[in-house]
Amino acid sequence: YVFPNPYDKSDTAAMDYVRPLKEEVKRRGLWACHLGPELGGPGFGQLKLALLNEILGRSVWAPSIFGCQAPDTGNAEILAHYGTEAQKAKYLQPLMDGDIGSCYVMTEPQGGSDPTLFKTTAVRDGDEWILNGEKWFNSEARHASFWIVMAVTNTDVSPYQGMSMFIVDPSAPGVEIVRNITVHGFSEDEAYTRFTNARIPAENMLGAEGGAFAIAQTRLGGGRVHHAMRTVAQMTQERIADSWIEMESFRLLVLRTAWLIDKHQDYLKVRKDISAIKAAMPKVMHDVAQRALHLHGSLGVSEEMPLAKMFLYSEVMGLVDGPTEVHKVTIAKEVLKDYTPYEGLFPPSHIPALTEKARAHVAARLEHRVGNL
Amino acid sequence: YVFPNPYDKSDTAAMDYVRPLKEEVKRRGLWACHLGPELGGPGFGQLKLALLNEILGRSVWAPSIFGCQAPDTGNAEILAHYGTEAQKAKYLQPLMDGDIGSCYVMTEPQGGSDPTLFKTTAVRDGDEWILNGEKWFNSEARHASFWIVMAVTNTDVSPYQGMSMFIVDPSAPGVEIVRNITVHGFSEDEAYTRFTNARIPAENMLGAEGGAFAIAQTRLGGGRVHHAMRTVAQMTQERIADSWIEMESFRLLVLRTAWLIDKHQDYLKVRKDISAIKAAMPKVMHDVAQRALHLHGSLGVSEEMPLAKMFLYSEVMGLVDGPTEVHKVTIAKEVLKDYTPYEGLFPPSHIPALTEKARAHVAARLEHRVGNL
Amino acid sequence: YVFPNPYDKSDTAAMDYVRPLKEEVKRRGLWACHLGPELGGPGFGQLKLALLNEILGRSVWAPSIFGCQAPDTGNAEILAHYGTEAQKAKYLQPLMDGDIGSCYVMTEPQGGSDPTLFKTTAVRDGDEWILNGEKWFNSEARHASFWIVMAVTNTDVSPYQGMSMFIVDPSAPGVEIVRNITVHGFSEDEAYTRFTNARIPAENMLGAEGGAFAIAQTRLGGGRVHHAMRTVAQMTQERIADSWIEMESFRLLVLRTAWLIDKHQDYLKVRKDISAIKAAMPKVMHDVAQRALHLHGSLGVSEEMPLAKMFLYSEVMGLVDGPTEVHKVTIAKEVLKDYTPYEGLFPPSHIPALTEKARAHVAARLEHRVGNL
Amino acid sequence: YVFPNPYDKSDTAAMDYVRPLKEEVKRRGLWACHLGPELGGPGFGQLKLALLNEILGRSVWAPSIFGCQAPDTGNAEILAHYGTEAQKAKYLQPLMDGDIGSCYVMTEPQGGSDPTLFKTTAVRDGDEWILNGEKWFNSEARHASFWIVMAVTNTDVSPYQGMSMFIVDPSAPGVEIVRNITVHGFSEDEAYTRFTNARIPAENMLGAEGGAFAIAQTRLGGGRVHHAMRTVAQMTQERIADSWIEMESFRLLVLRTAWLIDKHQDYLKVRKDISAIKAAMPKVMHDVAQRALHLHGSLGVSEEMPLAKMFLYSEVMGLVDGPTEVHKVTIAKEVLKDYTPYEGLFPPSHIPALTEKARAHVAARLEHRVGNL
Repeated sequence: YVFPNPYDKSDTAAMDYVRPLKEEVKRRGLWACHLGPELGGPGFGQLKLALLNEILGRSVWAPSIFGCQAPDTGNAEILAHYGTEAQKAKYLQPLMDGDIGSCYVMTEPQGGSDPTLFKTTAVRDGDEWILNGEKWFNSEARHASFWIVMAVTNTDVSPYQGMSMFIVDPSAPGVEIVRNITVHGFSEDEAYTRFTNARIPAENMLGAEGGAFAIAQTRLGGGRVHHAMRTVAQMTQERIADSWIEMESFRLLVLRTAWLIDKHQDYLKVRKDISAIKAAMPKVMHDVAQRALHLHGSLGVSEEMPLAKMFLYSEVMGLVDGPTEVHKVTIAKEVLKDYTPYEGLFPPSHIPALTEKARAHVAARLEHRVGNL
Repeated sequence: YVFPNPYDKSDTAAMDYVRPLKEEVKRRGLWACHLGPELGGPGFGQLKLALLNEILGRSVWAPSIFGCQAPDTGNAEILAHYGTEAQKAKYLQPLMDGDIGSCYVMTEPQGGSDPTLFKTTAVRDGDEWILNGEKWFNSEARHASFWIVMAVTNTDVSPYQGMSMFIVDPSAPGVEIVRNITVHGFSEDEAYTRFTNARIPAENMLGAEGGAFAIAQTRLGGGRVHHAMRTVAQMTQERIADSWIEMESFRLLVLRTAWLIDKHQDYLKVRKDISAIKAAMPKVMHDVAQRALHLHGSLGVSEEMPLAKMFLYSEVMGLVDGPTEVHKVTIAKEVLKDYTPYEGLFPPSHIPALTEKARAHVAARLEHRVGNL
Repeated sequence: YVFPNPYDKSDTAAMDYVRPLKEEVKRRGLWACHLGPELGGPGFGQLKLALLNEILGRSVWAPSIFGCQAPDTGNAEILAHYGTEAQKAKYLQPLMDGDIGSCYVMTEPQGGSDPTLFKTTAVRDGDEWILNGEKWFNSEARHASFWIVMAVTNTDVSPYQGMSMFIVDPSAPGVEIVRNITVHGFSEDEAYTRFTNARIPAENMLGAEGGAFAIAQTRLGGGRVHHAMRTVAQMTQERIADSWIEMESFRLLVLRTAWLIDKHQDYLKVRKDISAIKAAMPKVMHDVAQRALHLHGSLGVSEEMPLAKMFLYSEVMGLVDGPTEVHKVTIAKEVLKDYTPYEGLFPPSHIPALTEKARAHVAARLEHRVGNL
Repeated sequence: YVFPNPYDKSDTAAMDYVRPLKEEVKRRGLWACHLGPELGGPGFGQLKLALLNEILGRSVWAPSIFGCQAPDTGNAEILAHYGTEAQKAKYLQPLMDGDIGSCYVMTEPQGGSDPTLFKTTAVRDGDEWILNGEKWFNSEARHASFWIVMAVTNTDVSPYQGMSMFIVDPSAPGVEIVRNITVHGFSEDEAYTRFTNARIPAENMLGAEGGAFAIAQTRLGGGRVHHAMRTVAQMTQERIADSWIEMESFRLLVLRTAWLIDKHQDYLKVRKDISAIKAAMPKVMHDVAQRALHLHGSLGVSEEMPLAKMFLYSEVMGLVDGPTEVHKVTIAKEVLKDYTPYEGLFPPSHIPALTEKARAHVAARLEHRVGNL
């Protein structure tokens, strides 16, 4: 790409280039189309948004040029709903103007997106909250001017009542990005973050104390946090079983073919078998890698596990040394060599003909038995 | 069913019962909705027809009660377009009133629906045509008052110009139903018919001599005959290859499990393996039977081949002795017994940790080598 | 078939015909190969049995001619393990000789094969037990000389300790077959049975009182009853969701196509769309019917529900009016008409070329802006 | 990785580290196990190789440490078979010792691996051949000490007789790597190479003039070049059709949901619909990207097209905002809300009960009609 990253507001060349495009978008009334008039948008319905986004989706820059870049849109929404006037003045306006970026810091490594498993805590200390814990997959954290962080503020009540939201300054002491995780094809900036006695001013709490869950629900469209993303045990078991069956069956097919090669020492006699393992392998590799990747969640798609690479590798395997289609044609031709085309209209296993034959056979045999009496 | 077959107009109890329902349909203007006003219908568009048929589709009797029963609708259409006044008077009106049934006799056993392979001929002899040949899958022939038969009338030109349509009286000498073929779940009256020097009056030709192909196209919506239904060779090869691979892999999995049972003589040690073949078997059986059935075309779905039964049998196999889901759960549990849950946040194959470990290992080894110098 | 049913021992023509074949099998030492020498068999291991059954599986008569017909084999096994001498003399020997048939009566309509849900009870009354309840899918009950019935004899303990097995005479008062259920492609004799105050002599209890569960486990290979076949909830949910998505998407595709036909009134403009619904329909119908059939268990595969017929009907739909392959070829050709083959080595979306173009575009634009200053 | 690339022989730290490991392998007789004794290997059969490679496959370094690194193994094989003594002395021994690397330069961008489409030519000029053309996906070219290049030397005969092999020095004038193409998860060194009047000494021809095809067949195991990798037209058409159907159906499902949101303005009423598009989307994206990627061949898996990234992106989509499983559970729950559990043993569409009901309905109606006479 000419300009690599729409999140990087420090790229002044890109920002300069993009500014007149944004102005043109605003002039035509297409800025922040998802917002209603009360927030300065035209209030497009979902149908119009769907058609618009079908076009915007082709460019990584389009969302920021049209004022609908995630996660800033969602963050702006909760600032608008829950922010104090001071918070709105400081964060909301520049965010909606596209002048700064933001980051939503909720997910934790041990708990995925299930808030009942979150461990990051904030403890009140005078005019401040002391934040400790680790968060995971915080998109574009390193380009954000502020983070919105969800933390447990009361362990005596249920997680649905005991968590609060904070606006955090990324440059504050005790706030760090452990590393930025790459998800190939998606992002190179999924931050793994850590808070070590980070002090947050009390006025930076967003919404009511204990109100984080309700805010998160607003932000995530109500659908997500609600149904507590616990492990989905049986479906997982099905996937493990499928992978085991496929790998074991494939392994046997490979070993059998190796044995046939050693036995025949004649390539022409094992063409079908070699093509069979070549044709079967990419699918087994793909399906097993895909299931493993999915079961590992955000870690599975990241470059911190080999699964995403294996997943794509399987596609390479379906191309090198002859694409799968060619090997399947070979198999079919070799299999058909063992069969002779039949004469007549119907195949040999045609039931009316077989029944006729069986009747004649039985009649002849019975006659023979009677004759032998 | 209380009344078994809407095609059987000789079932007077059923016909009597149905008559007032038809009248009610006509009274409400819903009779033959697919027809335009020129043929006495209301001329519903396709969208209204789609919504109407979504409801009618729930009952086998509904189409005949609403005047839109195939194949009579299609046959009426070509009679209306191509019939002489005499033909219309005799066949069209009673057909459109639902008083008689009709049959469309085109397909041949050797050629499927590819008209270029048809062999049934009609040869002119004075005021008659002499019809010879065999036809296949002629739905409801035995309940029809007349058949519309496609035959080659000129072998010197291309099949597209050399075939003609005839209205045939099923009771005429030389016209016979060899047998009625059952397609379970679909029909018990797919006739296999034969014409042996059957004499057709010349005035029973439908449309122009040599015009059958154009008529057939009208009837089949223009889409079907047009693209000559020849064998689709490569897709067929793919299906044969897939079936061979799946059967051979499955066979190896079964033999391996049998060997393990013999070896261990201990059921607990082979639970996973037994469940694996039980879980894999219905899918292999289903997929192989489905492909074979499809490749055999009309014969494949009929009761004249064992394939349709095997296809359903595979579903029985997915239920008896424990449904597939239960066996997959068993496999997953047994597979997981060989693994120990890991401590800490990340799994053992976490690349950052492995890299760290490898670095330490290399460093130690290099130090050791240097120390050995 | 010439002889329709190997279970029907009253078919004397068939039995006479088969007798010398059985003798030949015994003469060659292949009778009841699954049995060890202590029960008169040769004690083949599983590997040899697997290879033998690969051959026997081709004929419905072979298992009875080779002395390995289910359910008689399993029933003989538990008689041998748990029967009294008197029971063995009366039932085991003729069963192993293939002279009589037997039936295993365990499953109940409400509980499938989950024994913890069984409701059929047997209450002791003097020298008899009084049996009440309904059983389901009791294969070949009507051809059996005796039934082995599992019933609750003690409701105060867990089902695993409170059920007993009985040998029941099918002709006894209060024992009836409600109806024989057909599973097309599999069997026409899956009995739905009912016991109404049927009196069973106390000496007909098989094994110990309360010992039915252990016996059932022996009979079912240890694997099945053990893991209580409860509903597998999440996998079921996944299947319901998939069916809803597929039906709703397909319905929209059909309605859109109907709307396009009405709009264009020109067949050539909607060929792609018509072929698309024709190609998509059989798969949707198949997948939805298959899932529903499976979720209904034994009822689903039976002729008492329309699902098995729908399942096969979907295959008919993949053939009539042009097989799916032909319609896919049409779609591909129509889709490709909207594209022009590109010149040069690489396609238009080749990233290196696009990047080059974008760079030039940005450079020109920047130059233009600078020029405008 | 600590040491990034086994192909990079210039990485002296890595080479030093690896040397004693290679020696250990040789000491144990496991070096180059695929080679027979005539070439200095132990001549393992394929079965032993399969089991060995199952272990080696876990490490990217293992093949080079065990002397079985592609493409060097294949290149060594053809040097051994076809090389002159001088060629063997110069290239074969150091290659087999693992001291240098090699590259096999056959594929061309326009022709994939179909040799009949190759355009690179070599024209004799005195003691040299002048090489011109472009090659593609030449793995690890930049780390190789020599390349084996296939070129057309006689355009008057068929490609099977008119191509020759050359050993090419990568540092010669006119030999260049246009760029190294990355296939994520597989390699970063798939070279796109160009020859511009590159002069090759005549003694560097490998094997006979016109003998390249036979050599290539040896190298590729005989299976690949043989069946000319032409486009597999019908299978391709099937994939295009499937993608169009899936995208169009999904698009309609999205638009319908957007319309429902606008209509209801109530999230609770569209939960099912939102979850349906969230659950369906990753699969559509995956399947469409996978087919497109495969149809683009080597270009498709490379980073020069967006397809590989889209392919992995689809997996990310199956995780963010709730994994697919969770959304399917939501759909199932919402769908089931519209149904009431039935009383009694059998579901409402149980055919025996419906038939009973229909019979009663018909009887009552007939009675009513008679009464009205």
